[in-house]
Amino acid sequence: MSRIGIIGSAGAMGQALVQAIAAAGETHAGGIDKDGDLAALVSASDVLVDFSSPAALEANLDAAVAGNVPIVVGTTGLEERHHFLVDQAAESIPVLQTGNTSLGVNMLVHLVREAALRLDESWDIEILEMHHRRKVDAPSGTALMLGAAAAEGRGIAIEHNSERGRDGITGARGRGAIGFASLRGGTVAGEHSVIMAGEDERIVLSHSAENRSIFARGAVRAAQWLTGQAPGRYDMAKVLGL
Amino acid sequence: MSRIGIIGSAGAMGQALVQAIAAAGETHAGGIDKDGDLAALVSASDVLVDFSSPAALEANLDAAVAGNVPIVVGTTGLEERHHFLVDQAAESIPVLQTGNTSLGVNMLVHLVREAALRLDESWDIEILEMHHRRKVDAPSGTALMLGAAAAEGRGIAIEHNSERGRDGITGARGRGAIGFASLRGGTVAGEHSVIMAGEDERIVLSHSAENRSIFARGAVRAAQWLTGQAPGRYDMAKVLGL
Amino acid sequence: MSRIGIIGSAGAMGQALVQAIAAAGETHAGGIDKDGDLAALVSASDVLVDFSSPAALEANLDAAVAGNVPIVVGTTGLEERHHFLVDQAAESIPVLQTGNTSLGVNMLVHLVREAALRLDESWDIEILEMHHRRKVDAPSGTALMLGAAAAEGRGIAIEHNSERGRDGITGARGRGAIGFASLRGGTVAGEHSVIMAGEDERIVLSHSAENRSIFARGAVRAAQWLTGQAPGRYDMAKVLGL
Amino acid sequence: MSRIGIIGSAGAMGQALVQAIAAAGETHAGGIDKDGDLAALVSASDVLVDFSSPAALEANLDAAVAGNVPIVVGTTGLEERHHFLVDQAAESIPVLQTGNTSLGVNMLVHLVREAALRLDESWDIEILEMHHRRKVDAPSGTALMLGAAAAEGRGIAIEHNSERGRDGITGARGRGAIGFASLRGGTVAGEHSVIMAGEDERIVLSHSAENRSIFARGAVRAAQWLTGQAPGRYDMAKVLGL
Repeated sequence: MSRIGIIGSAGAMGQALVQAIAAAGETHAGGIDKDGDLAALVSASDVLVDFSSPAALEANLDAAVAGNVPIVVGTTGLEERHHFLVDQAAESIPVLQTGNTSLGVNMLVHLVREAALRLDESWDIEILEMHHRRKVDAPSGTALMLGAAAAEGRGIAIEHNSERGRDGITGARGRGAIGFASLRGGTVAGEHSVIMAGEDERIVLSHSAENRSIFARGAVRAAQWLTGQAPGRYDMAKVLGL
Repeated sequence: MSRIGIIGSAGAMGQALVQAIAAAGETHAGGIDKDGDLAALVSASDVLVDFSSPAALEANLDAAVAGNVPIVVGTTGLEERHHFLVDQAAESIPVLQTGNTSLGVNMLVHLVREAALRLDESWDIEILEMHHRRKVDAPSGTALMLGAAAAEGRGIAIEHNSERGRDGITGARGRGAIGFASLRGGTVAGEHSVIMAGEDERIVLSHSAENRSIFARGAVRAAQWLTGQAPGRYDMAKVLGL
Repeated sequence: MSRIGIIGSAGAMGQALVQAIAAAGETHAGGIDKDGDLAALVSASDVLVDFSSPAALEANLDAAVAGNVPIVVGTTGLEERHHFLVDQAAESIPVLQTGNTSLGVNMLVHLVREAALRLDESWDIEILEMHHRRKVDAPSGTALMLGAAAAEGRGIAIEHNSERGRDGITGARGRGAIGFASLRGGTVAGEHSVIMAGEDERIVLSHSAENRSIFARGAVRAAQWLTGQAPGRYDMAKVLGL
Repeated sequence: MSRIGIIGSAGAMGQALVQAIAAAGETHAGGIDKDGDLAALVSASDVLVDFSSPAALEANLDAAVAGNVPIVVGTTGLEERHHFLVDQAAESIPVLQTGNTSLGVNMLVHLVREAALRLDESWDIEILEMHHRRKVDAPSGTALMLGAAAAEGRGIAIEHNSERGRDGITGARGRGAIGFASLRGGTVAGEHSVIMAGEDERIVLSHSAENRSIFARGAVRAAQWLTGQAPGRYDMAKVLGL
């Protein structure tokens, strides 16, 4: 049984993590927010889960390294210099960094890359997502992650091969392009579909989240997996055994 | 058994009409294209189906009136003056004019209007369509027709309540807005979904076409229904008994 | 602002009702469970919502009649004699009885009946539902309600026109039959699709619930609507203005 | 450019193959049916495609071996002794045998096996298929193939872990079971979905066929791939580079 410490314990994600730790049969080692005692939390933990903020990342990684405790970094909005800090820490301790802790989403990303690798450009790839009415950006970060996986599988650059926001006289679809479309409404937690449309047939690979607890659950699963790994940098694909 | 005459018999739609007439147990009275003998066709027909062109509409209606033969007008791209001609002809003979002869699509339009009439603005309405990779405009005409039906049911003007081509920082969804999104790929004949997303629940009303024969079949059904009606102007809703 | 009293306030539905009452801007007049003071609750309420049990129905209706307070009966498992009691009470007070308080599900039922009324037997009707892994019966009660609406629209008896549990050599599909299929898995709150499959086209009418709060919300909406109605028996269709 | 000879050229599949050969830029070397000159066809062909019958398989393989010509065997209904014949022929020539020549279906089978390998038994697997109203058996052969791939990925025996034809009081879903459900209606060419339902999230992997031409197209692609391979037995996974 691992003692899991939460950095960034306020808010909905912190509460969801506490529930997910209990559901997984692990021990909640405690949680801190902005003004908590980081060193004490590290001492009490076998593994850390960080959902705080990019600004706090450096201190968090330093404390984890000082205490020799593995850390899962689920904070979003990281920039290049944050990734450099992650790499540095990973020389001493196991660090798992990911932009999305859902196991299902990461499985979908893997399957999309695999399919895009095998199907030629006669299969048109479209990415559709739906989220609740309050979301302010489109496409979603996960849709872009799926698009990147498709482009990677196909060996093309997503920057030069996207069709977004179709409206009006668009002309025929570009061969090899990856299309994006966004739906907004209600309280939808998040749905993504990758459509591969060939001659007279279609393959559709989808993920839907019923609520946001899946991110907490995946983070706990990542923490369990990370305990006992050698120092190094990991991602969710490893947790799935990919 | 009715004798059905086809105006605009060349091309894929003409062939599909011949098959649909046979499948419906009716008689194909013949077909003409640009240079055919219109008067002879009218004489040989109990009812006419016109899929020619807006430019030919006036002559076609005149011939139908002269011969006292009902006519189904499925030609797309009609303008105000064409609708005026239809109204005039409808004073003497039964005329059914429609922008879409598919029974299923017209049923969907009806159901969408009905649902939008009953559900308040806390239900966000989104319209999604997918068509083959060669389609050059977005959203599809049928998607716009569905949006108009939703707006009509809700008692709002579609012109001031549409969200199209979402991309980038869009801000939160507008209350009462009707959203549109378009997918393109492969050989998809045409799929439309109207999503009504409320608090914690969704209603989705969809239509999918496997191929384009449904337009011919619906036109023949319209022709059967039109035979024996009193002079006047009708639409597909009447064929469905709405 | 109405004071809404809850009969059957224990358990998940009771809690959901309290939240839904607050969210709707109404007043929670209190709730009782098995041993509560029914007469006091009736006195304190402008309208009652009953999710207790068939066994308690007679006492609940008697108290509502005695206090001249409208009552929404959402209890499931009612038998013929319970419906007789509802009819009796409805001579004195407004009573809304329903097997499903979700507005979305009731809208879907209405749309299915409407579509089945207009489409002939060349359209095959199939009903698909998915629920969580713990559900012990198939098809769901809501799927059967949808099947009954389709049969009613079509003017046939559902008892003699169902195809359920297809497996093995089934033979070709029966003309006019209504098919049912059930999926089970995960934590799915409830999804229902009515598929109308014609020649080369399909209409699909669906509802999905993200969680069970929609039943509480619909019950509160029903209670709001019922306040101020004349004595009589009503159902959810009336709340939707059907 | 390869010369492709068709064994079993009568019927819809034979015609579809001729079109697919032309569309792929290859040469149609001719086709024979029951009484055709097999030796002459083999002489004129660089590769053979066999969609005849199990009864004709031995003679077809013998002729291919005698002429040293690779052969794609798409005939269904093969028994153990037929597979033995295929193995024997594969000692001398390249033989690709498959129960389903669609590239998309074979890709889906691969993705399902891959996902089932990575996701533990807390993810419930359900397989849903829809076919036209004339299909007489359920579940479809492709649904069973998908179920077998899921069971293989998960390391269980499909025979002891299937839930089929749910109806009535079924009890809760079995942990680790693979469920099957079948829809029938209209003219649907074939749709398959594999649903993996976990805690609060779902992954769905689907394939839909717009018509049956995909089987001819896949067979031609297989024939192209098979030309130039070493003697041996192959399947569609190889064509996809798996």
